[in-house]
Amino acid sequence: MTLKVYADRMSQPSRAVIIFCKVNGIEFEEIKVELSKRQHLSPEFKEINPMKQVPTIVDGGFKLFESHAILIYLACACPGVADHWYPADLFKRAKINSVLDWHHSNLRRGAAGFVLNSALAPALGLPLNPQAAAEAEKLLSASLGMIESFWLKGNGPFLLGSSQPSIADLSLVCEIMQLEVLDEEDRNRILSPHKKVLQLIEETRNATRPHFDELHAILYKVKARLRELCVAGTMTGDRPSSRSE
Amino acid sequence: MTLKVYADRMSQPSRAVIIFCKVNGIEFEEIKVELSKRQHLSPEFKEINPMKQVPTIVDGGFKLFESHAILIYLACACPGVADHWYPADLFKRAKINSVLDWHHSNLRRGAAGFVLNSALAPALGLPLNPQAAAEAEKLLSASLGMIESFWLKGNGPFLLGSSQPSIADLSLVCEIMQLEVLDEEDRNRILSPHKKVLQLIEETRNATRPHFDELHAILYKVKARLRELCVAGTMTGDRPSSRSE
Repeated sequence: MTLKVYADRMSQPSRAVIIFCKVNGIEFEEIKVELSKRQHLSPEFKEINPMKQVPTIVDGGFKLFESHAILIYLACACPGVADHWYPADLFKRAKINSVLDWHHSNLRRGAAGFVLNSALAPALGLPLNPQAAAEAEKLLSASLGMIESFWLKGNGPFLLGSSQPSIADLSLVCEIMQLEVLDEEDRNRILSPHKKVLQLIEETRNATRPHFDELHAILYKVKARLRELCVAGTMTGDRPSSRSE
Repeated sequence: MTLKVYADRMSQPSRAVIIFCKVNGIEFEEIKVELSKRQHLSPEFKEINPMKQVPTIVDGGFKLFESHAILIYLACACPGVADHWYPADLFKRAKINSVLDWHHSNLRRGAAGFVLNSALAPALGLPLNPQAAAEAEKLLSASLGMIESFWLKGNGPFLLGSSQPSIADLSLVCEIMQLEVLDEEDRNRILSPHKKVLQLIEETRNATRPHFDELHAILYKVKARLRELCVAGTMTGDRPSSRSE
């Protein structure tokens, strides 16, 4: 039975899971759960995931949500996934788990909070919230600083100084890519001080071509649409950020 | 070389790691990092963990932080840890990872946010923040509701319907135990609707005796001290909540 991946490509963890499957030749069926259409709130989807979040996978009779747990499961369950994605080595694996846990309360909160409150809120029918955006930006910038100065220490271009990407690179880079929907000034102010982070994005893109660009194409469409709405002065609804994790 | 655990027992993830070590007979040295004395900000501790958080472990030359990553590492690295703490079975393990990931953005944010803003802030030199507390209480109550209705489904008394505890039970229960520092009215309003959660606390306490009570004793001391300070009208400083994860 084919693996089913319930996802919305506007959700950064959904993209990470889909890119992982594609790069590793894992056969799967992508089932769109359009957050902007509130499909994640439907009774049918609630049966699959009572938390009403994407991504969610169904593998035979086995249901799983939370993208980090999904990535770990797929790396361990699917034959042929290269070891570097989630090394069997106990120490390397522990460090990757540490990055993934750190992501939740730091980069994730900062990036998702800033993107929502500075750009996407009107598309969700919410007001922009400059105060919340400013708070989130602090956490986001501090998180990018820690990636730059700590997680990217070492010889290799990937997190933890590795020469090849792990699921942590994929997860964090998909999160950072969400900043592509921001206006240029915001994006540059936040990202440009972090040259090694920019390099990490490029290395991850190169390691996962052509799937990385395919999966992120939606962000540029949404950005253009947000700009149109903004110019028209009618922020009356487009795709929301996500209800993902 | 003995495992070193840098911890403050006022930090819920610190308690989870110490209880895990004690229950499983893992030899370790507990090194106090007193958050109230800002010892986590010292240059010496920053060398050990640049994120300045507890718990952190040093196992020989191997440093690790983030309590979930630490618990997983210890469960896998230490001989003699019973399988139920972090089962080798791929599916069971994936579900535990899912609970742990969910914890970060749900129970953790709700509980830590509520305890800080409704009780501990003055001890940190911060004002109580009723609006932030109200927001956090919503997330906390929703999280407890999901534990009750979803994570505790099944026959066994532990998370995921298990008959024996996993590291997820330990982590989440230590989080919920932080509510012990609240005044009775707040604690009862939030916890009493969730009978299965109360039962989970008791089962986890029973499964980890006497270490569970030993590790949580500090909460009751701090609660008494907070009450004294409150009565005296001089909330001028005691132990802060934590700078843990």
